[in-house]
Order: sequence, then structure tokens, then C-alpha cells
Amino acid sequence: MTLDPQLIRDTYAAIGPATMRTPTVYAARLSLQLGFDLYLKLENLQHTNAFKARGALAKLLTLTAAQKTAGVIACSAGNHAQGVAYHAHRLGIPAVIVMPEGTPFNKVKRTKDFGADVVLHGKDFDEGVQFTHDMAAEKGMTFVHPFDDPVVVAGQGTVALEMLEQEPDLDCIVVPIGGGGLIAGMAVAAKSVKPDVLVIGAQAANFDAVKAAFDGGETHFDGATLAEGIAVRAPGAANVAVIKAFVDRIETATEQEIEAAVFDLLSHEKIVAEGAAGAGLAVIERLAPELQGMKVGLVVCGGNIDSRLLSTLILRGLVRDGRITRLTFEIDDTPGQLSDISRIIGDAGANVIEVIHQRMMQSVSLKQAELEIVIEARDQQHVAETIAELRAAGFRVRADSEIT
Amino acid sequence: MTLDPQLIRDTYAAIGPATMRTPTVYAARLSLQLGFDLYLKLENLQHTNAFKARGALAKLLTLTAAQKTAGVIACSAGNHAQGVAYHAHRLGIPAVIVMPEGTPFNKVKRTKDFGADVVLHGKDFDEGVQFTHDMAAEKGMTFVHPFDDPVVVAGQGTVALEMLEQEPDLDCIVVPIGGGGLIAGMAVAAKSVKPDVLVIGAQAANFDAVKAAFDGGETHFDGATLAEGIAVRAPGAANVAVIKAFVDRIETATEQEIEAAVFDLLSHEKIVAEGAAGAGLAVIERLAPELQGMKVGLVVCGGNIDSRLLSTLILRGLVRDGRITRLTFEIDDTPGQLSDISRIIGDAGANVIEVIHQRMMQSVSLKQAELEIVIEARDQQHVAETIAELRAAGFRVRADSEIT
Repeated sequence: MTLDPQLIRDTYAAIGPATMRTPTVYAARLSLQLGFDLYLKLENLQHTNAFKARGALAKLLTLTAAQKTAGVIACSAGNHAQGVAYHAHRLGIPAVIVMPEGTPFNKVKRTKDFGADVVLHGKDFDEGVQFTHDMAAEKGMTFVHPFDDPVVVAGQGTVALEMLEQEPDLDCIVVPIGGGGLIAGMAVAAKSVKPDVLVIGAQAANFDAVKAAFDGGETHFDGATLAEGIAVRAPGAANVAVIKAFVDRIETATEQEIEAAVFDLLSHEKIVAEGAAGAGLAVIERLAPELQGMKVGLVVCGGNIDSRLLSTLILRGLVRDGRITRLTFEIDDTPGQLSDISRIIGDAGANVIEVIHQRMMQSVSLKQAELEIVIEARDQQHVAETIAELRAAGFRVRADSEIT
Repeated sequence: MTLDPQLIRDTYAAIGPATMRTPTVYAARLSLQLGFDLYLKLENLQHTNAFKARGALAKLLTLTAAQKTAGVIACSAGNHAQGVAYHAHRLGIPAVIVMPEGTPFNKVKRTKDFGADVVLHGKDFDEGVQFTHDMAAEKGMTFVHPFDDPVVVAGQGTVALEMLEQEPDLDCIVVPIGGGGLIAGMAVAAKSVKPDVLVIGAQAANFDAVKAAFDGGETHFDGATLAEGIAVRAPGAANVAVIKAFVDRIETATEQEIEAAVFDLLSHEKIVAEGAAGAGLAVIERLAPELQGMKVGLVVCGGNIDSRLLSTLILRGLVRDGRITRLTFEIDDTPGQLSDISRIIGDAGANVIEVIHQRMMQSVSLKQAELEIVIEARDQQHVAETIAELRAAGFRVRADSEIT
């Protein structure tokens, strides 16, 4: 099989009946902020909440009857695992998913819920892949690679055909990049339909292998990223070649930018997006001056973000906006202090939402106490005004930039 | 004006160009859980993130040139305020919004961001309404009622026309009820297109005025509800008459059910829904045995939920599922205890995510300490197994059902 427009069109027809035609919606608030029209392709609403179900289904549909009976095996702790498990189950194909040891419970559970056997092995994807290949050979099962397979890539590429059917006027499509499968497929598909559409890739600055290959720069692998779906060290060589030929540009986003973008998608557009999609929006925000006048489409590639992480991300977003701030006071340990402080905060129009009174394990002297008060305010300016009032009344107070 | 199918069709044509045609999507995971097909009409993606923008726009489009110049005034702390402000600003019509004193900052800010003048008055909607009427008379501005106006109701009713265009096979539509405008308009519209479609209303058990009027039972107004968008004491009389004639059934949802439903929409379907939409899903979950075999549509009427509340709601959802649990230990205040406990928890396959060591202000004796450990586990069963291991090792431990 060769990745070309015909393969993608054939794949589009093949997977259509069992694939969600996810909506492409206008992002009203973000468009207002950015100054140009932004559209979101909601693949977070796809089966298993990620575009990966497309490529997985595309591959499963090419198996022979004997291969279907023998079953499939995949290595993934994330969206690919769920995509393979979901469609294999639906088609009655046995599936084994190899996940790294230490994979979060809910990911194991979700994959098992889709009827797959889960085998925990190795400490990361690289260790798991060799094991998975060996197991595939031993058991006669078909290995389904998450991105290094033209049929899988063609499946992912169908996202572009759907987007351009839904919004034919898009001038630019921004696509998150991990192993490169999604953008390779989408770039080939998009340029075959609309040769002048810009295709821009987005990587996490901490995992920028494809950008490095594209620009000839150095790669960075710097610990973890919120965009775990695109935290790939070794992208597919075939994908990189396609990307060099068809993609216009690749930019990266920092962890702070990714986090803020996921918060923006949640609070402004009311959708749950995973970090990879946040990287895409972050790149759009960075390139905003150059994108003025264009109609831009972002692939919200998935919505699988850990709930606990999401809860914390929301709080941190509120802290960043100044809506929640922790004030730390050094006060004399005498009665009435809390009352005075609360009154001043209330008069300034802010709300006290939490009070922590510490008398132990602190750096101030025994006769003093440390008081932490978490307040809710309108924004950073309002926080500054409230602090000014407190200081004018003689209180020693500092604002923390983070809630821990 | 009279609320009839023709008015709704005319309104649909009038507001169409400036209204988002929000998608109706298949809720894959919830459908699997419920055993029947559930579709979500995503009015949380509407302008100002709620269906209210439809009715507001419908009203604004009926104003004379002189009325447009004089401006409009509305009383609302919620979605109606934003809907009026957004479309008035877009159409160049001056808008004043009266909000109760104590309205959360971000609601005031959002409404001001849309260009409206915000006046804070009264302690609730009822106090504000009279003030707003007086101000409208005094200034010659047009009062835009959130639900007691056939044009506004016709605007809300367009949601049903759109849903049935998108999913003509729906057997049942579930609609949250506050003032009754949305369901009155939708019931008239839906039954005109498809006379045998079931229309079921959903109210918060704490604010069930319309259900009481419908069933002839007693009303309950019991404090606050997460579904603040439908916390209406006095629904429109005209709406109630329409509801009695066209709606098939009304059910209520408890606060616990509403909270769980909002969490389900977020974690399973990746959308941010406000409490009113949660009430709708909760009613669907309660009626699930009766809805088997049907194709059911839920109006996700809005996505405006306070971010801080949402963050807490997510954590509480994880606690409910057993994914996060706080264990409280009474331990001898001697070295090594934490190490032993951590090892047992780790061996049981759970993760320690927070440790709080208290030696002050507690009920146990001075020689003992209270240790709180927050763990992450797979589910309630896994928590029970972990606690059994700890007790087998001699630790006195209890699990809390809530994180405070």
C-alpha cells in the first residue's frame, strides 16, 4: 500500500459507516480574541474520543478472514489502544493491547472495558514495541502500528477530507504531531482537494522530533508533557518524508502554553480537549499575527485527559487569570486579626474562599503566625487593588502565583 | 403574537443567519451505558454558550427602528443576560442588564465584555424584575423577558426544528425546564413536525414549579441548585398552559443526580454542560428502563458552569467512583509508620497522591497522631481491597466518602 489521495478516499468510504462524522464548529469566543475565524474539528467526540479510531478501523478492515480470526495486537497506553480495542470488539476480532507497566488505572480499565486483553510490559513504548512484535510473531496475530503504516495513516487522513467538506473555505489547517501519522495523512488528503491550503504542524517543545527533522534543527526530549498523546521520540520515517513534501510549517508550544490552551478550549469553547489539541491551539495563538484574514481550522484530535489533571488545570487557570489567589500573611498571633483582614478583603469586593491558619512548622517567630487566605477576585488588577488596601491597613502580605 | 408553528418557522428563518447551527451528536459511551441511542444537541456551543441567544435575537429582530435606537433592558444574572448583550452589541442596539447584587464576578464581566451596561440591583430575580420594568418605562427602553414572551419562546423553539432536521428519527426529546420557554417552544415546534415524538421535561427537584403545575402536586423551593439556569420560582403562565397541552411528561432530578450527570457529560462525552443540562441527563438515566428501544435526544441547553465549581465537581466525581479516596489513620507517633503504610498501599496497586500529618487540634491522644492519606485507586472495590490489606497489617484506618 502507498499513501496517496486514492488510498485515503477509498479508506474514507470504507470506514465511513462505523466512524462518527464529527462536527466542525465555529469557535466564537476564540475567534473574537484571535481576530480571525477559527473552526474546531471535534475529533474529541469521535469513538473512543480520539481520531485514532479512524486509523485503527481502517487497518482492521484490510485484514483477511484468517487474520481476523487470529486477532490483532497493539502497543499503546493511549488513544491508539482504545481505538483498536473498540473497533476490534465491534468486529469480533480478538485484541491484545500491550501497555507500559505503571499505565494509569483508568486507561487500563477503559481498554479492558472495550473487551481487549491488556498485557503490562516494559517501562515505555520503545520497550513495549519489541515485546509486542515478538508476541505478534509467536501468536500469529497482526501487529497494528499506531502511525508507521500507510493504511493507518490513510485512516487518519480522512479527517482532512471531512473538514474540507464541512468548511471548504478553510485557508489553513493546524494539526498536532506525534508520530506524524495524522498530519501526513491529512496533508496528502487536504492538498489533493485544495492544493493551496496551508498545513501547519504543532509539536510540544519537549518532544519536537518531527520539527527537528523538518527544519534540520536539534531535537529536545525534556521529561514529560501534558500533550502525552504526541510525546513520541521516534516518528515514522515514511511519515517524516511525507511531511517534508506536503506540510508548510511546524511550530512548537511550551508546557505553559499548552496548559493555557486546554483551559481556553474548556472555558471559552466548552469542550474537553487533551494536551495535544492544546499544542495546536497554542501554535495558532503564537502565529495569530500571521494568520489574520484567514479561516483557520484546528483538529481537536482527542479529549482523553486525566480527570484529576483537568481539575487541577482548571484551578491553575483561575489562578493565572487572577480569579483565585493565595495571600500569605505574617500576623501577630492575637485575636481579631482574621476579622480585620476579612473585612478589608470584603470591602475591596473580593471573596474569601479558604482560610489556613498555621502555627507550626513555619519560618516566622513563635509569637507570630502565618495565615493563608485564598481569595476570589475579578482579575489580576483586582487582586493588586485588594493587596494595596491590606497593606495600607498595615498588614504584611504577599500573593502567591500558584495554589499548591 | 401567538406562539404557533408558523411563528416558530418564521423565527427560525429570521434568526438563522446569525445563529449557530449547533451539532447534534451521538453520545457513544452514554448510549452504551443506557442501552439505547442517545443524541446530544450541543447548544452549549451556541453563541454565548446557551440556547438563550436564540430567543434574545428573535426578540431584537422584531423591534422597530425607534425601539432599536432607544435600546433594550433585561433582568438576568445568567445566560439570558449574555444572549441579549451579545446580539444587541452585534446589532448596535444599546443594552442594559440588571443583575442581582452579589452576582459572581465572571458573569458581570462576561456581560460587560459583550458591551452591555450592567446595573446591580436587588437580591434576586424577583426584586430585579420590578426595578427593570420601572427603568424600562422611565428610559423608554424595551424590556426583553427571558421566557414570558411568545417571540422569545418561538426563538427557543427553533432548537426543536434544528434537532429534527439533524436527527429526524428521534422518538423522544428531553428538555430542561426553568421558566418554561424552551420546552414550550420546542414542544409546539416538535409536535408540528412529528406529532408522535415524546417531549419530556426535566426540572431540578429543588425548583419544580412547572412539574407541580403539570401534575397538580406541591411545589418545592429548597435552597440552591447546581442547575441555576432553571432555578425559577414563577414560570410564565402562558408557557405552563402550552406545556400542559403539548408536553408528555415532566420528571425531576436531585442535586446528587444532576452533579453526577454533569460529570458524566464531561468525562464520557467530553463536553462542558451546565447543571440544567445535567438535570436533563439525570432524568434520562432515571427513565432508562422505559426508554429502551427509543432514539432519545437531549438538549444540552448551555455550558456556562462556574470553573471553580467544575473543578470541584470533577474531584467529587473521582471520589464517587472510588478513584480518589481519603484514608484517615490513627497511628502511634513513632518513626516508620508512614513508610509501612506507603509500602502496603503501593503493594496493593494504589498510588499515594497526598499526605497530611496532623499533630494538633485532633481528638486522639497526645502520643498518637492522625495521618490522612489521599490515594488513587481503580474503583471502590480496589479501595476496599487496599483497606483490607492495611487492616490486616494492624493499622486503624477509615475511608472518608468525601474530600473536603
